[in-house]
Amino acid sequence: MQKLKLGMVGGGEGAFIGAVHRMAARLDGHWDLVAGCLSSTPEKAQRSADSLGLERSYSAFEDMATAESAREDGIDAVSIVTPNHMHLPIARTFLAAGIHVICDKPLTTDLTQAEAFAQNCDGYDARFFLTHNYSASPLIRQAKAMIEDGELGDLRLVHAEYLQDWLSRPADPDNVQAAWRTDPERTGGAGAIGDIGTHAYHLATFVVGEQASHLAADLSSFVGGRQVDDNANIMLRFTSGARGSIFASQVATGTENGLKLRIHGTKGGLFWEQENPNQLIFTSIGGVEQRITRAGAGANNAANAVSRTPGGHPEGYLEAFGTLYRDIARELSGEHGAAQDVPGLQDGLAGMRFIHACQQSSKNNAAWQTL
Amino acid sequence: MQKLKLGMVGGGEGAFIGAVHRMAARLDGHWDLVAGCLSSTPEKAQRSADSLGLERSYSAFEDMATAESAREDGIDAVSIVTPNHMHLPIARTFLAAGIHVICDKPLTTDLTQAEAFAQNCDGYDARFFLTHNYSASPLIRQAKAMIEDGELGDLRLVHAEYLQDWLSRPADPDNVQAAWRTDPERTGGAGAIGDIGTHAYHLATFVVGEQASHLAADLSSFVGGRQVDDNANIMLRFTSGARGSIFASQVATGTENGLKLRIHGTKGGLFWEQENPNQLIFTSIGGVEQRITRAGAGANNAANAVSRTPGGHPEGYLEAFGTLYRDIARELSGEHGAAQDVPGLQDGLAGMRFIHACQQSSKNNAAWQTL
Amino acid sequence: MQKLKLGMVGGGEGAFIGAVHRMAARLDGHWDLVAGCLSSTPEKAQRSADSLGLERSYSAFEDMATAESAREDGIDAVSIVTPNHMHLPIARTFLAAGIHVICDKPLTTDLTQAEAFAQNCDGYDARFFLTHNYSASPLIRQAKAMIEDGELGDLRLVHAEYLQDWLSRPADPDNVQAAWRTDPERTGGAGAIGDIGTHAYHLATFVVGEQASHLAADLSSFVGGRQVDDNANIMLRFTSGARGSIFASQVATGTENGLKLRIHGTKGGLFWEQENPNQLIFTSIGGVEQRITRAGAGANNAANAVSRTPGGHPEGYLEAFGTLYRDIARELSGEHGAAQDVPGLQDGLAGMRFIHACQQSSKNNAAWQTL
Amino acid sequence: MQKLKLGMVGGGEGAFIGAVHRMAARLDGHWDLVAGCLSSTPEKAQRSADSLGLERSYSAFEDMATAESAREDGIDAVSIVTPNHMHLPIARTFLAAGIHVICDKPLTTDLTQAEAFAQNCDGYDARFFLTHNYSASPLIRQAKAMIEDGELGDLRLVHAEYLQDWLSRPADPDNVQAAWRTDPERTGGAGAIGDIGTHAYHLATFVVGEQASHLAADLSSFVGGRQVDDNANIMLRFTSGARGSIFASQVATGTENGLKLRIHGTKGGLFWEQENPNQLIFTSIGGVEQRITRAGAGANNAANAVSRTPGGHPEGYLEAFGTLYRDIARELSGEHGAAQDVPGLQDGLAGMRFIHACQQSSKNNAAWQTL
Repeated sequence: MQKLKLGMVGGGEGAFIGAVHRMAARLDGHWDLVAGCLSSTPEKAQRSADSLGLERSYSAFEDMATAESAREDGIDAVSIVTPNHMHLPIARTFLAAGIHVICDKPLTTDLTQAEAFAQNCDGYDARFFLTHNYSASPLIRQAKAMIEDGELGDLRLVHAEYLQDWLSRPADPDNVQAAWRTDPERTGGAGAIGDIGTHAYHLATFVVGEQASHLAADLSSFVGGRQVDDNANIMLRFTSGARGSIFASQVATGTENGLKLRIHGTKGGLFWEQENPNQLIFTSIGGVEQRITRAGAGANNAANAVSRTPGGHPEGYLEAFGTLYRDIARELSGEHGAAQDVPGLQDGLAGMRFIHACQQSSKNNAAWQTL
Repeated sequence: MQKLKLGMVGGGEGAFIGAVHRMAARLDGHWDLVAGCLSSTPEKAQRSADSLGLERSYSAFEDMATAESAREDGIDAVSIVTPNHMHLPIARTFLAAGIHVICDKPLTTDLTQAEAFAQNCDGYDARFFLTHNYSASPLIRQAKAMIEDGELGDLRLVHAEYLQDWLSRPADPDNVQAAWRTDPERTGGAGAIGDIGTHAYHLATFVVGEQASHLAADLSSFVGGRQVDDNANIMLRFTSGARGSIFASQVATGTENGLKLRIHGTKGGLFWEQENPNQLIFTSIGGVEQRITRAGAGANNAANAVSRTPGGHPEGYLEAFGTLYRDIARELSGEHGAAQDVPGLQDGLAGMRFIHACQQSSKNNAAWQTL
Repeated sequence: MQKLKLGMVGGGEGAFIGAVHRMAARLDGHWDLVAGCLSSTPEKAQRSADSLGLERSYSAFEDMATAESAREDGIDAVSIVTPNHMHLPIARTFLAAGIHVICDKPLTTDLTQAEAFAQNCDGYDARFFLTHNYSASPLIRQAKAMIEDGELGDLRLVHAEYLQDWLSRPADPDNVQAAWRTDPERTGGAGAIGDIGTHAYHLATFVVGEQASHLAADLSSFVGGRQVDDNANIMLRFTSGARGSIFASQVATGTENGLKLRIHGTKGGLFWEQENPNQLIFTSIGGVEQRITRAGAGANNAANAVSRTPGGHPEGYLEAFGTLYRDIARELSGEHGAAQDVPGLQDGLAGMRFIHACQQSSKNNAAWQTL
Repeated sequence: MQKLKLGMVGGGEGAFIGAVHRMAARLDGHWDLVAGCLSSTPEKAQRSADSLGLERSYSAFEDMATAESAREDGIDAVSIVTPNHMHLPIARTFLAAGIHVICDKPLTTDLTQAEAFAQNCDGYDARFFLTHNYSASPLIRQAKAMIEDGELGDLRLVHAEYLQDWLSRPADPDNVQAAWRTDPERTGGAGAIGDIGTHAYHLATFVVGEQASHLAADLSSFVGGRQVDDNANIMLRFTSGARGSIFASQVATGTENGLKLRIHGTKGGLFWEQENPNQLIFTSIGGVEQRITRAGAGANNAANAVSRTPGGHPEGYLEAFGTLYRDIARELSGEHGAAQDVPGLQDGLAGMRFIHACQQSSKNNAAWQTL
């Protein structure tokens, strides 16, 4: 398989998620990063490109799309790693230029925009991928397959939570990450629900294979002066009859990146947490609790397909992220179906519906809202 | 300190909680069990009494109250360990006879009854205690004291859960424990919320020192034909501004007796789980996570006061239960204030208000209900 | 079953293990403590007896043995909870008086004495029990039964460790516990190996059902001026071909009471730690790791026989200790075989041989020593 | 920084560690793999090269060294990922050709060979690096720095273990990994001690900053017919007075890749395990146990220097391995001192002395052997 050429918009100096995308893209050797518009500030864009040894640096994403689509050796895909409010304009531009898009989540800042975008997408030949990276963790794939295979029976309870504490105090204005994540302009008004709640909701629904039908959300802004939510207590109902919850918080002192998933069905229950992702706890009803390890004796095909090393050699955040890039590369290289588990437009829309429903429910004193 | 004389109503052959009360009462040597009405079936009552070496066996609790209060060497207190619907008639009878009452939770089956009982209680000289045993676990006492001392700052999040799976399938009619706990007649209509939800709610409010002001409860009966709830997803709001949740489930496959508590404030966060009760996880904001152990370097006076052995010698369920009996004995022996942390009538009322509010909210599609 | 009458020698004010024995004896209601010689200082003995409500207090154990054996309502058994060097003189006296003995470990301070005692014991009608309490933990009984049943296959590796840190600094002379445990007169020269190494060795051999044939011991006294060992690294060989180790340390900073056991055989491996005693980790070769819980789905008959509460209700140090007292009571009450798993004279001798071999090996630069 | 060009010897189809080296080299974008002699079987070498998109494939490493050193765009460094017995001939050839060497451990199969090689190395301009990858794990770097800074005081106990179970049964002849690792010809007679014991020994001595002075080793071959050791129980002594141990086993049923390190000093103790590498447990004497997390509040500069993502985003085996490649690239690109923590020749020699001493001691019935 020939290497693909990657571009990037966003992800300049001081950015977190851009560096993550670059490591993820490199891990399996399927991508060469060759072009970027790494910052909207021209000098910063150039400096960032230089430090990465990037051959082609642009200071406007529109120029980048035009130029790259015109080159014979232009990029095959672009990664969008900007603040949320810029995702769609950039995505639209590259898709229109025939360049595949790998976009960070959430899709955008507003459900109406998202739906309009989705309609337009049908007209493009280029593909759109959304990096809900946790869904590529091997034991998450295992969990999904176990549920599809009926190992948990009919699902009853679906609890997901994503707890952080890094916004427990007013955001330091010098902290770029914190600044835009608490700015309603750049996030569309969603705070924790957009930044991490969408991850938790995606993970839960990816694994159970079903969207929630209704939710009741109690959003809070605990930190004085904050204009976006920093905590969300959410109850879920599913058409299948399952009940559940999502907790998303950025003020949960003592937590780091606590994304956890618990699912209980008539035949079994399972538990996974991303901070310790190489194990999946599974108990068959009336049986003994099992600790299924990545690449261990109990790992299934779905897990093994996205695992790189033997059991006991911990893989983590970057490896799962890398799997998305690997599978997108395979798909774009003609391996049809390789990206079937890579989230895309529908996942992005579902995320926006989740954010929208949370906000509507919360305005309505946590009344049930249809998703 | 002289030994006190204890009687018991309920707790005959095959009972679970009666045996627990007996071990708890024995542990510190302050009680002698001397009388009982261990079953409402006379032969079973006698057989049970014989197997325990009980000198005085009664087949009607009214007779027992009359006889014991008349004896010079009559019982000082009675433990009530029957199904819920019998708690109040028995308690009333013994209190009226001047005998102190140690009653299992919940207080009764109905809020109106509970309130009437509470009013009557003022007229009795005898005392009423309620065995919310988990509140006597040393590191729960530690957590409560830490919060009182401001170590967590202003509280923001209070999450409690109590997950079991033993009622995941239709109750075996031969299982006495399961039979009465799923019988609306004997539980007052409450299932999981009464049996374990009240424990979780009590634990959370005991530690934070504040009742919730509102709750929104989504109750379910997952098992076909079941007439009481077996799962509850509950959101909480506190007057102080804190938000929280209670999950109580008896269909969470893969769990045993999973009572857990997490509290996050502006200055710190903590986590405790009763299945591993000898550690309390605490993180001061911006600090390193600490594992405070029972009787270890970080244990405070409140914890040490109810701890029996050095750190690393695990204490558990029975020891915490025993602490209630120890402190009640001290109190009744004249050590004024010894039972200040032992739950009583107000805790019982709060529990009934919790159950009632859950049922009202759930009937109203999980709308917020004042507590 | 009628209650038995218990006496105690040692265990007065400030003692640790005496209080433990008393709680253990009370837990199941089979014993009444009625007499004691709680201290060798008469006033302290009396004061301690008074605070316990003991009817009969003695200031010399010889007087106690004489008087109690002469009384119609004399004690059935005596618990010996003194420093080690007094174990045998006291045991001999009570056994000769026809009173059963429940002795704390180790048996004594010297192998020669121990062997002489063992020979004399045959002449007594009264029984001798040794409180290696950890061996009564339910999941230790489970492990022993699993090995007997061949679930681990042929054993290859047997690793036990017992790590504490409370003697990491020179012993505070005011700390009674530390003072005698570091005094070669009262311990017979053994420090960590006698106090906790014997527990680890007993636990390992109890579970595998075989004594070690050889050991090589590297003993140290890390704390300046200390006259007994405070750390032991020991390698083991078994006749069966298994190899193993014992680590015993009282200077392992950061540990509390870290007794752990790992056993690996041709068919499976298991792991248990006493600070978290309600779970046993078991993996069948080529299988998934299982977490067997006390009274849970995977608990076997051996475990269930010594378990008091359902799964998820943690039992700990005192409960296991109490099981020894319960089974001794049953045995002495005529339930033949009830105490078959309670350690006795042979276990005491094996412990003394272990201590002796460690000391001999260490003097010989950790050369192999036959046990 | 310009990308460096990498070659590889070994690591063709079916190899484990070659693929690991490739991912590690890619992660930070400092290396391009451009040439290889991936197998000693020509067709397999070619097929492997093709599947990796390698431009230059060789079937003899000598040809590769000659050709690459002659090219203007020849490789800067070569990774050696063959079975152990080929490490030195290949290393020598590339070093002589002026090409830097990145060699998998252990250095070779025989101490005498290793020493001869070490003497020759002085004559080469090219550098030699040894991939003891675990030493680059962030919290291992943290532990080393803490000890250097005196946070543990004087060290007393140094226990390392590395337990696996994948060779618990006779090796499947079709399992390439197992076949060569149990073949005395290709490993020099060392089994577990060479394959994993050297990792444990390196990790322990890297962290404490001191080689052991003596060891006593009890080696076993539990599996019938096996000609190399599959289990090692080793006691250590250090010149500083510290004592310790190494357990290395490939027959410890129920373990995967259980590399663990515990160190206790006069002022504190710490614990780390590579299967859960994002936390370091530290307890200051008399203090509360702390869970220091990678990139968390307690992480020091040494850890942060080799950390890529914020706390709570688990990094693992590949990331630590990648750090070696990153630091080697920096060093070779002129950043003097960048590879100061990357193991090299002296570490390789120490490893061979460890293996040799284990074998000598074991032949001598586990007598102490000078290292």
